[in-house]
Amino acid sequence: MRIAIGVEYNGAVFRGWQRQNDGPTVQGVLEDALSHVANHPIVLVTAGRTDTGVHASYQVAHFDTHSERSDYAWWRGGNTQLPPQVTITWAKRVSDDFHARYSARSRSYRYVLINRKTRPAIWNGLVGWEYRSLQLAPMREAAASLVGEYDFSAFRAAGCQARSPIRTILNSEIFASGEWVCYDVRANGFLQHMVRNIVGVLLAVGSGEQDPGWVSQLLSGGDRRLGGVTAMPDGLYLSAIEYPGQYALPRPQPAVRFW
Amino acid sequence: MRIAIGVEYNGAVFRGWQRQNDGPTVQGVLEDALSHVANHPIVLVTAGRTDTGVHASYQVAHFDTHSERSDYAWWRGGNTQLPPQVTITWAKRVSDDFHARYSARSRSYRYVLINRKTRPAIWNGLVGWEYRSLQLAPMREAAASLVGEYDFSAFRAAGCQARSPIRTILNSEIFASGEWVCYDVRANGFLQHMVRNIVGVLLAVGSGEQDPGWVSQLLSGGDRRLGGVTAMPDGLYLSAIEYPGQYALPRPQPAVRFW
Repeated sequence: MRIAIGVEYNGAVFRGWQRQNDGPTVQGVLEDALSHVANHPIVLVTAGRTDTGVHASYQVAHFDTHSERSDYAWWRGGNTQLPPQVTITWAKRVSDDFHARYSARSRSYRYVLINRKTRPAIWNGLVGWEYRSLQLAPMREAAASLVGEYDFSAFRAAGCQARSPIRTILNSEIFASGEWVCYDVRANGFLQHMVRNIVGVLLAVGSGEQDPGWVSQLLSGGDRRLGGVTAMPDGLYLSAIEYPGQYALPRPQPAVRFW
Repeated sequence: MRIAIGVEYNGAVFRGWQRQNDGPTVQGVLEDALSHVANHPIVLVTAGRTDTGVHASYQVAHFDTHSERSDYAWWRGGNTQLPPQVTITWAKRVSDDFHARYSARSRSYRYVLINRKTRPAIWNGLVGWEYRSLQLAPMREAAASLVGEYDFSAFRAAGCQARSPIRTILNSEIFASGEWVCYDVRANGFLQHMVRNIVGVLLAVGSGEQDPGWVSQLLSGGDRRLGGVTAMPDGLYLSAIEYPGQYALPRPQPAVRFW
């Protein structure tokens, strides 16, 4: 049978999602915890592999098992085996046609940063930081110009293995309150480092280094070398994944609003 | 000459404010950093000593020095010597009659918690957690009944060394959004563990274990043994200190709003 789980984690203490031999990963600690509950090795398939230092308030994964356990047992039993920086928020038996990655209709990320002269201390590792004073109006204009279906070659990492650079951004918005700036983006999928590269471009625009029209130039040029600096991972959160209603998965909680 | 500084810190990695031999403290790392800038030993006097695990988004301290440095040099130079979890947000030369503790007219604390079945992972160490479902209306009623001048003996730690248990609470309010609950309290001063003991009582009321009227019974009874469980320090933030306008200190930024 197939089980889907919701996961929340603080990526600052992990070397990304994907299991590897070199340091703790989210997939690694989750597979170990669930294998303990299942009493056989569990392999997780995720909606999206996050990089080192990137967080998730709503990550989804699935696994197959022959062990009969209640949804409650997977959830509670798994959590007793996990470190404090990762938690299973729900577990739900799903039909075998559900696939955490291929059933996903869209993914949402949120990037949170503090815009002030002094580096963040309380939120160290959990928010980005920009010391240059940001102008929101040009950032909003630049963010809005990303909505639509485009070739995002200028926003993908050199090592990105996706077959196609075409993605559709459905929502791309800036919010702000006081020192806090928040960028929300939803797309059918993302290329490697795509959100952090977009944020790097938005910061260049917000600081006055570039005009908002630069975004369209980058999109049509398709050259990553002309883009901005990749934003630090600290402020990036995988915040939602949308699935067809037939699976009736628990929805993300309304995201914490920083304004 | 006398210098005042604003400080922000993540208390999860410190054994409280006060310098001690056993583990890192906020006072300890700050005095070491500023002594390096001053080139002589610096001793800090703070507005309020926070306990182990308690954070500050706006803490104030002062020190005396014979070293001529600009406000900028104290701020930037100090920060280069500090660990990532503490930062000096401003430094300002003040008149010799300024005293971080005795000049303060009021202090504000914020307690932030997540109310849900699953423990917080992203915010581990930075928020409180209550798994019982909280009712806000009785919590608000209980919080409001604390406003005024009272004997807070029922809300002080056994080891509290304050001479008088009388304090005046000026503001006491509950905010909430989704899973997030936030308690803001402002007073002329606080006894040891007073805010955490208040929060423990509010959680007992919110969970239905006690009626809102219990707060008044505790205040008039004056017996700490009849109170609630002391709330975990993780969710507690020193958020503001009010000084007379003549000192023209930088004000706290609008607190992050969780709703």
